[in-house]
Amino acid sequence: MNTFQTGYRVSYSDTDQMGFMHHSNYLKYYETARWELFRSIGIPYPEIEKDGIILPVIDASLKFIKPTYYDQKILINTKVKAQSGARIIFDYQAINEAGEIINEAHITVACVKKSTGKACIPSKKIKDALNELINK
Amino acid sequence: MNTFQTGYRVSYSDTDQMGFMHHSNYLKYYETARWELFRSIGIPYPEIEKDGIILPVIDASLKFIKPTYYDQKILINTKVKAQSGARIIFDYQAINEAGEIINEAHITVACVKKSTGKACIPSKKIKDALNELINK
Amino acid sequence: MNTFQTGYRVSYSDTDQMGFMHHSNYLKYYETARWELFRSIGIPYPEIEKDGIILPVIDASLKFIKPTYYDQKILINTKVKAQSGARIIFDYQAINEAGEIINEAHITVACVKKSTGKACIPSKKIKDALNELINK
Amino acid sequence: MNTFQTGYRVSYSDTDQMGFMHHSNYLKYYETARWELFRSIGIPYPEIEKDGIILPVIDASLKFIKPTYYDQKILINTKVKAQSGARIIFDYQAINEAGEIINEAHITVACVKKSTGKACIPSKKIKDALNELINK
Repeated sequence: MNTFQTGYRVSYSDTDQMGFMHHSNYLKYYETARWELFRSIGIPYPEIEKDGIILPVIDASLKFIKPTYYDQKILINTKVKAQSGARIIFDYQAINEAGEIINEAHITVACVKKSTGKACIPSKKIKDALNELINK
Repeated sequence: MNTFQTGYRVSYSDTDQMGFMHHSNYLKYYETARWELFRSIGIPYPEIEKDGIILPVIDASLKFIKPTYYDQKILINTKVKAQSGARIIFDYQAINEAGEIINEAHITVACVKKSTGKACIPSKKIKDALNELINK
Repeated sequence: MNTFQTGYRVSYSDTDQMGFMHHSNYLKYYETARWELFRSIGIPYPEIEKDGIILPVIDASLKFIKPTYYDQKILINTKVKAQSGARIIFDYQAINEAGEIINEAHITVACVKKSTGKACIPSKKIKDALNELINK
Repeated sequence: MNTFQTGYRVSYSDTDQMGFMHHSNYLKYYETARWELFRSIGIPYPEIEKDGIILPVIDASLKFIKPTYYDQKILINTKVKAQSGARIIFDYQAINEAGEIINEAHITVACVKKSTGKACIPSKKIKDALNELINK
């Protein structure tokens, strides 16, 4: 199954005075989750950057369904939904300790040559690794 | 015209090793921009919280069009698009020093009673201030 | 031995355009480390807050010895150095994958009654747990 | 008088569930304050980095005297205390709306050649600008 699971415990500095995790933090933890997925399929993100390629986020949509609290353990399910042209699309679900979905997101990154800032097609190695995952 | 403009200078801690502002920061600066808009129409957010109401984000979609760099001044245009039931919808544009749109977003907040965590209708004062703005 | 060890992998959003982890993040990860130490000795920080007590930082000094990079695993050694009056003093060392000390810090927190904002003596349970640790 | 003053309004995302600004944020706002001071004396930090020099923090000590709250305006007084060898030392005070000192800090940065990671002596332009300020 093409879903990669990582865990995260909400830290004190993630919270704001509402008493919840500040909503901007989901983007940070989804970023970490997608590079952990990449590591698990043999294409660690630091090596991609060493080859002069960066994968910035170009599109993100998030649904904040339930608040998350300090010290709660959340599970993040990350799925590579599609790879097409320069783009890679990820689907996310964050789940709390009670098993409830607290957040859902779709995030698109683009393959970009760092030296020129231009979009590019991912290397054969990256495409093969992603396609194997998508077709699982 | 129902568009409220604020400025922001990208700080060093906003950047990541790509050399751009990290994408999660837009959510922080859009938050600050919307409460500045609220202050400008006579409903400062701290007073709303004092009345036991919080306005958490329940939905956000962002398009990252161009990167933003350290020390760049960006303009943020914030617009109240609609208010309906417990929800208030904001449209955003961030513009760089060259006048280019670098980011666009739609963010929905919900009016929630802090003590119960239940959605609620904004007070007459808030609704009136928002509707006057929307109908400008 | 009164030293509690936790691990942390530097995330992309921790970095800045120097290509290192931004220096402000050490304070966040030392905070997480000290509450993990507290959890390990039976006084989880969320329960302390439930009893109306907060433990804000009142003093911090940090030595940034070597830069830390994205995706590096760092070890954090946390030690309770002293407890006296309302104060608890922690010593920290952060160590990189090569075994080098990259950061050292001393951080003091104070026991404060949340309702009044006044400093207070920690409960017998907290004092006993800390003293057992200090005298190990 | 060698004291440079900048203002900052505490944003919602700066707070944590204690209801205060999270203590790690002082390091961020002191960083912004010192580069505003540099801009004011004709040595903007982005140009220093363009010359291949970075100025990372190597030492920081902070005293957290009073909490700071969401939406409060704080004044930051920044002073260049000394420049010697590769080091530049800054003194800081943060002051709340009631005129009370809420935080004091001493922060040392080092002049480092980005390509080698080695400490270096600041350029004559930087040294002259700093010495003129120190001797004011």
